[in-house]
Amino acid sequence: MAAGKILYAQSGGVSAVINASAAGVIETARDKGIVVYAARNGILGALREELIDTSKEAKANIAALKHTPGGAFGSCRYKLKSLEENRAEYERLIEVFKAHDIRTFLYNGGNDSADTANKVSKIGQALGYEVNCIGVPKTIDNDLVVTDTCPGFGSVAKYTAISVREASLDVVSMMDTSTKVFIIEVMGRHAGWIAAAAGLAGSAPGDAPHVILFPENVFNPETFLAKVKATVEKVGYCTVVVSEGVKDSNGTFLAESGARDAFGHAQLGGAAPVLAALVREKLGYKYHWALPDYLQRSARHIASKTDLDQAYAVGKKAVEYAAEGLNAVMPVIVRTSDEPYKWKIEAAPLDKIANHEKKMPKNFISKDGFGITAAARRYLAPLIQGEAPPPYGPDGLPIYVTLKNASVPKKLKKFKI
Amino acid sequence: MAAGKILYAQSGGVSAVINASAAGVIETARDKGIVVYAARNGILGALREELIDTSKEAKANIAALKHTPGGAFGSCRYKLKSLEENRAEYERLIEVFKAHDIRTFLYNGGNDSADTANKVSKIGQALGYEVNCIGVPKTIDNDLVVTDTCPGFGSVAKYTAISVREASLDVVSMMDTSTKVFIIEVMGRHAGWIAAAAGLAGSAPGDAPHVILFPENVFNPETFLAKVKATVEKVGYCTVVVSEGVKDSNGTFLAESGARDAFGHAQLGGAAPVLAALVREKLGYKYHWALPDYLQRSARHIASKTDLDQAYAVGKKAVEYAAEGLNAVMPVIVRTSDEPYKWKIEAAPLDKIANHEKKMPKNFISKDGFGITAAARRYLAPLIQGEAPPPYGPDGLPIYVTLKNASVPKKLKKFKI
Repeated sequence: MAAGKILYAQSGGVSAVINASAAGVIETARDKGIVVYAARNGILGALREELIDTSKEAKANIAALKHTPGGAFGSCRYKLKSLEENRAEYERLIEVFKAHDIRTFLYNGGNDSADTANKVSKIGQALGYEVNCIGVPKTIDNDLVVTDTCPGFGSVAKYTAISVREASLDVVSMMDTSTKVFIIEVMGRHAGWIAAAAGLAGSAPGDAPHVILFPENVFNPETFLAKVKATVEKVGYCTVVVSEGVKDSNGTFLAESGARDAFGHAQLGGAAPVLAALVREKLGYKYHWALPDYLQRSARHIASKTDLDQAYAVGKKAVEYAAEGLNAVMPVIVRTSDEPYKWKIEAAPLDKIANHEKKMPKNFISKDGFGITAAARRYLAPLIQGEAPPPYGPDGLPIYVTLKNASVPKKLKKFKI
Repeated sequence: MAAGKILYAQSGGVSAVINASAAGVIETARDKGIVVYAARNGILGALREELIDTSKEAKANIAALKHTPGGAFGSCRYKLKSLEENRAEYERLIEVFKAHDIRTFLYNGGNDSADTANKVSKIGQALGYEVNCIGVPKTIDNDLVVTDTCPGFGSVAKYTAISVREASLDVVSMMDTSTKVFIIEVMGRHAGWIAAAAGLAGSAPGDAPHVILFPENVFNPETFLAKVKATVEKVGYCTVVVSEGVKDSNGTFLAESGARDAFGHAQLGGAAPVLAALVREKLGYKYHWALPDYLQRSARHIASKTDLDQAYAVGKKAVEYAAEGLNAVMPVIVRTSDEPYKWKIEAAPLDKIANHEKKMPKNFISKDGFGITAAARRYLAPLIQGEAPPPYGPDGLPIYVTLKNASVPKKLKKFKI
């Protein structure tokens, strides 16, 4: 690589293992004698010149990132506009890089981040400042193309499958006189990856979950109710997994199609209560519903070991690529075997990844639309394998680290965002 | 004890560790050469003569109950009426006991179960059939009197504290540009024990949770909003824990005071979305909300070791009391030391427990009404200590047992319930 420092930034929604990628970056860079700065609150910190000197952080704290959920340096939802629309932001980034001798920018995020990194690399060249940009994959949505999976997804998948299995054991115990329909809503606005992963909770006929509603399918109340009724009559209860992104035939999110709050606004999120209302109204069954929300993507206590290893590996590889002088690439996960699951990391060009979205293949959803196929299982199963619990204190709580995040003194004027 | 068999029944809402009590009962009885029958679906199975012969179950399966959530024999929500109102049901129980030579009835449940066991014991005597009744404590609500805590509670408490800590790490990472208020709704219709346990997630000033809403307090929108606003301004975000039982000044559950579903009915459960609507309307902050519902009480994967040990111990002791010929008692947990936490099991008379409810002491809630006190911490802290993860399969999922539950041939005529 060009001499100089690495700037690492976390982008978009965080996950249970994004900090493991940070640990992979920092530990590998330290081994090579490279200093890593981190941007405070993602790309905003880079624009604001709010930088953190990770070399001031104790080794044990960096190691503890491997078992700490959330984003240790802060992340943000802030999408840089196009070069044409807001060239000033890109120029500012280069200005900050220059001021702090940053020669590699590692952007840990999803599609948008890959796009941004790609653009930053180009404008650097245009402005005569050499900076290599490398994307580090992260998204619980599992919607990055090229890579076999996205770090963060496997852990949500595991959390969801376990939660569905556990809650269903509760429901089946009580179904004779209590809840007959249990509905759990999971994340996934555009693609049903997490909902599909819930399907791993059961494998034998009659096992929960019995109904999975994918955003890939238009919601049909009649077939849904018929399936729920048939399941309750056959199995005694019915566990439903619904993706937050499920829409009705008008293209309206289920979550927004139903309830009005006390102020007359559409109910704030919640496809599950809408389905529960439908079940009560049309079938009369007792129901319960759950909406784990952030719990699912921050549940480091039950993270997938496979996911954790991959999150660390992409961080580590990103630094190795940087050291080799690679530019505009992303370390992606390549599956070489399903069973046993084997994978390796390869460099893929960012412009093959940016602005694409990986949908679930059609053959992952069963014919009736309510379950997953053998092909889906083959793909999903390895991603939740292995446990990697955090250390626990004598108080019974996981020991998560909070970094001291020492600020790098500013050298530039304030930039208006 | 009188010769004869033990009948064990699970009652009411199940928990992550009620099966550990079952294991304590069955393993201890086996050691003593006593046969344990279990009632299918709780007291209903006893009335219907739907009995399970646990001696047909492999030793390893019984041991596996210690790490399996839900109710392995089925439970039910069915409260026996008073002796005066429905003497026939009590007489039927005695008839079933007689037919199967059951001389001890172990009823694993909360307040109602303690009351039922008490009554059954008395009518047996009146009808000239000697049967000893022993209550085995269980309730995630933690509302049984006399006992230090109730098996089931410690595990929900641990799940809740960990979830609040994890989700708050997510929120704090993103607060600059995303969610500022995160609301999690927990169980507890009458008492705020679980909500209070969430308070264990933080201890330093500024730690989440910042606001706890207890059912013990009338909800005041103004003070709530003021507290949320002040917290966001000071800490940057605000994590709110709300008990499902919180009511407004009209005595209406928050969960029912807000949204209307598509059919015009009151929104089905959910104090959290009502609060979220309020926050949006009055403060304009971005929010997220979670409602883990059954996930919290079935989360065996993150059960408290203390809770698990106590659940097993009360099952074991119940059989020892039975062997000693004790009647109308419950093995309760007696705390002998806070730090280190020490406890023992003692026999307490059922009529001191039945029909009482343990509320949170007033001095457990902080003066402003939104937090827990040092006294609460002292009481709650030990209950979530220790981990006892279930075994995991190579598929990355916990290995939970499903018993074969061999039926005992019926000897009596059908009984109409």
